[in-house]
Amino acid sequence: MTEQPANRRRLSRRHLLTSGAVAGGALLGGGAVAAVTDRDRPAAAPTPVADLSIGTGTEPFHGPRQAGVATYPQAHASFVAFTLHRGVDRAALGRLMRLLTDDAARLTQGQPALADTERELALLPARLTVTFGFGPGFYRAAGLDDRRPPSVADLPPFAIDRLEPRWSGGDLLIQICADDPVTVAHAQRMLIKDARPFGAVRWTQLGFRRSRGVQDEAHTQHNLLGQLDGTTNPQPGTAAFEQAVWVSDGPAWQRDGTTLVIRRIRTELETWDLLGRTDKEMALGRRLDTGAPLTGQAEHDPPDFTATDELGFTVIPEFSHVARAHVADERLMIMRRPYNYDGVPNADGHPDSGLIFASYQADIDRQFLPVQRRLAERDLLNEWTTPIGSAVFAIPPGCAPGGWVGQQLLE
Amino acid sequence: MTEQPANRRRLSRRHLLTSGAVAGGALLGGGAVAAVTDRDRPAAAPTPVADLSIGTGTEPFHGPRQAGVATYPQAHASFVAFTLHRGVDRAALGRLMRLLTDDAARLTQGQPALADTERELALLPARLTVTFGFGPGFYRAAGLDDRRPPSVADLPPFAIDRLEPRWSGGDLLIQICADDPVTVAHAQRMLIKDARPFGAVRWTQLGFRRSRGVQDEAHTQHNLLGQLDGTTNPQPGTAAFEQAVWVSDGPAWQRDGTTLVIRRIRTELETWDLLGRTDKEMALGRRLDTGAPLTGQAEHDPPDFTATDELGFTVIPEFSHVARAHVADERLMIMRRPYNYDGVPNADGHPDSGLIFASYQADIDRQFLPVQRRLAERDLLNEWTTPIGSAVFAIPPGCAPGGWVGQQLLE
Ligand code: HEM
Ligand code: HEM
Repeated sequence: MTEQPANRRRLSRRHLLTSGAVAGGALLGGGAVAAVTDRDRPAAAPTPVADLSIGTGTEPFHGPRQAGVATYPQAHASFVAFTLHRGVDRAALGRLMRLLTDDAARLTQGQPALADTERELALLPARLTVTFGFGPGFYRAAGLDDRRPPSVADLPPFAIDRLEPRWSGGDLLIQICADDPVTVAHAQRMLIKDARPFGAVRWTQLGFRRSRGVQDEAHTQHNLLGQLDGTTNPQPGTAAFEQAVWVSDGPAWQRDGTTLVIRRIRTELETWDLLGRTDKEMALGRRLDTGAPLTGQAEHDPPDFTATDELGFTVIPEFSHVARAHVADERLMIMRRPYNYDGVPNADGHPDSGLIFASYQADIDRQFLPVQRRLAERDLLNEWTTPIGSAVFAIPPGCAPGGWVGQQLLE
Repeated sequence: MTEQPANRRRLSRRHLLTSGAVAGGALLGGGAVAAVTDRDRPAAAPTPVADLSIGTGTEPFHGPRQAGVATYPQAHASFVAFTLHRGVDRAALGRLMRLLTDDAARLTQGQPALADTERELALLPARLTVTFGFGPGFYRAAGLDDRRPPSVADLPPFAIDRLEPRWSGGDLLIQICADDPVTVAHAQRMLIKDARPFGAVRWTQLGFRRSRGVQDEAHTQHNLLGQLDGTTNPQPGTAAFEQAVWVSDGPAWQRDGTTLVIRRIRTELETWDLLGRTDKEMALGRRLDTGAPLTGQAEHDPPDFTATDELGFTVIPEFSHVARAHVADERLMIMRRPYNYDGVPNADGHPDSGLIFASYQADIDRQFLPVQRRLAERDLLNEWTTPIGSAVFAIPPGCAPGGWVGQQLLE
């Protein structure tokens, strides 16, 4: 056969050697090809992306704190929760965490796992982070329930909950995030292979945000309801973030850790889309286009929850989502790092979509629960959101090279 | 509350104004922050992606041919197939296709659809293409079975098939591809909303490839089996592509069209991973690292299917995938544009993954079927791949501004 050494390819090789960014059109040459192209779509590759750092980018694995919390959210995430097998004890958990730490340390740096069966898939980490979480059952299995951070316990039931067991609970969590979905799929597979002798996969939740390079990192992203989601959030690198997110005292197995609440929240797009824009904005308390509070002009204008209109009503409805969710003391804020999910629509074309709502805070009882209680009690947005899954995990501290995650707890 | 005007944000705004790319670290200032950062992960956003064209990039919608075929494959795809409601006739199909064409013409150019309920989600097209396909039932519903390209018919059964109705068939296909998953989700929702008065969603398949900017466009990508997939493929802009993919004669409703076979092929990663690398390479006929044929050094070296080793066996096993799939006459090649899928692993940690194998060719009977027959008869790879879905569609020609897809057929 004529394994046609296509123009694009030959030229692309040269392009690689010269390393300059060439516009897609310039890659074409030769009369016949040009003639064909005329009628055709712009042939071959689009304008090459000048910056390939999206694939080779790495996030450090080792450090006093685990990555994947303060890390600028990657485009793709997989949250995998396990139920530990009966008989998996403290010693076994130590072996498990040594194994998983080794996998994570390699994969996040663009190296294959020790037993990697698809080594080539490990070479583009795309800012991969792997973050481990311990559910209440992890401490029980280890016989170390006295070391469980007290707030790491099943949440109390809320009237709004329609929880399904298939999205709830879990003894061990592996959170896998990267800017590339192939990288996530590969890391997920390697980590599951090493974890499954110790536990059954209880649930897996796949989520996404905007691809990298689609929007400036400084921009807040829209969720699938069309809302700017993430405006009021502790910012990594600030003292507020430090206090709100990381545990700064207590025993070694807690310090520099945090806690994670994952709520799978279905969004009822069918009825949401029956609302006009004004009603959508009232339910939230912010504008859809700019994300500005109803009392302001720009996204980051501080909302004025007391301002009233001529009728005496507050401009930001008192039962709007932001009015109810608002936390005045910044040390008590929660750090939201949510992902969209979008499953397969049903025959009627109704979507299966929503948020994998992930909230990190030093203490669930002091920070998350008060907000969740207020929202469960009254929040206009509740009509279009339904919690269908719930799980809580301690995120233990990170580890230094040679160490492993969970070592302070288990050794 | 102190809606903290975080350092990152304040500086990012300035960054936007000055438009220069600044490294993430440089965005931080102030002793306290720096001190905090020391213990912390690298704070805030990673090094900004210099090139934001991934989000604003567009592919032309109008033209003699539909986009999404010769288009360099976007990172994310959704294939949505519909079963037309009883009573939907030629006139109704005309209304449907006018509506969908209008949606597609707008959304692909970064504009909201006319009835867009989340207008903000339409603004970053990320090279969105929307491609329409007509299954056999579409022609029947229109009373135009005589205009159906003869090769657009259910494939004959193959011994390897384990087809499930939930991934098979369909009267109308909407193929939605973009470099951003939020864009795909939004376009999918808007198009389904306009299509569902005319039909039920029969199936939806979501697939992915590497994110843009992760790898140079000139590189062939690895699939989840760890193989370089896409080496021998007609290249857009070449005469071979023209002949193999596009219909160049016949009535107006066929000319500049093509056909599409979608096979959902589960890959049996559990048993695949029991193989050593050499066995994996023998099953395929190419190397895992370089993608080179077993008779060559580099990916694009032409394979020598006749070369033998000292024992007299062909170096590329005669039952390897590439030996069996190989098409000598380049006018009869198929154009593969597959996506990976990766669903939720089961409790044992066995993945639900594989290929959404999408093949475009001028004529299914002349091009696709001979290859598929050879592979079904004998292909070492069959042991690790199982077709679980199958559907065929005519891809009608494109349209000029003011026109609509399907017009030549339906008017
Ligand atoms: C599908 C469910 C939800 C959606 C779509 C949603 C969406 C939003 C949006 C668009 C904002 C305004 C922009 C921003 O500051 O990020 C917001 C703010 C907020 N949300 Fe939610 N949210 C959901 C569930 C929750 C839950 C379950 C909690 C906590 C239990 C929560 C806590 C907060 C907090 C604390 C704020 C900031 C309020 C402020 O101080 O202005 N949200 N949410
Ligand atoms: C999960 C299923 C499949 C996998 C993983 C797979 C993978 C591959 C790989 C890795 C190659 C070699 C690199 C390349 O040239 O792209 C290849 C080549 C090829 N495949 Fe497949 N393939 C699958 C199914 C199919 C099917 C169903 C067909 C058609 C009916 C097909 C047709 C071809 C053709 C025509 C070639 C090029 C052969 C040559 O001339 O060298 N493949 N495939």
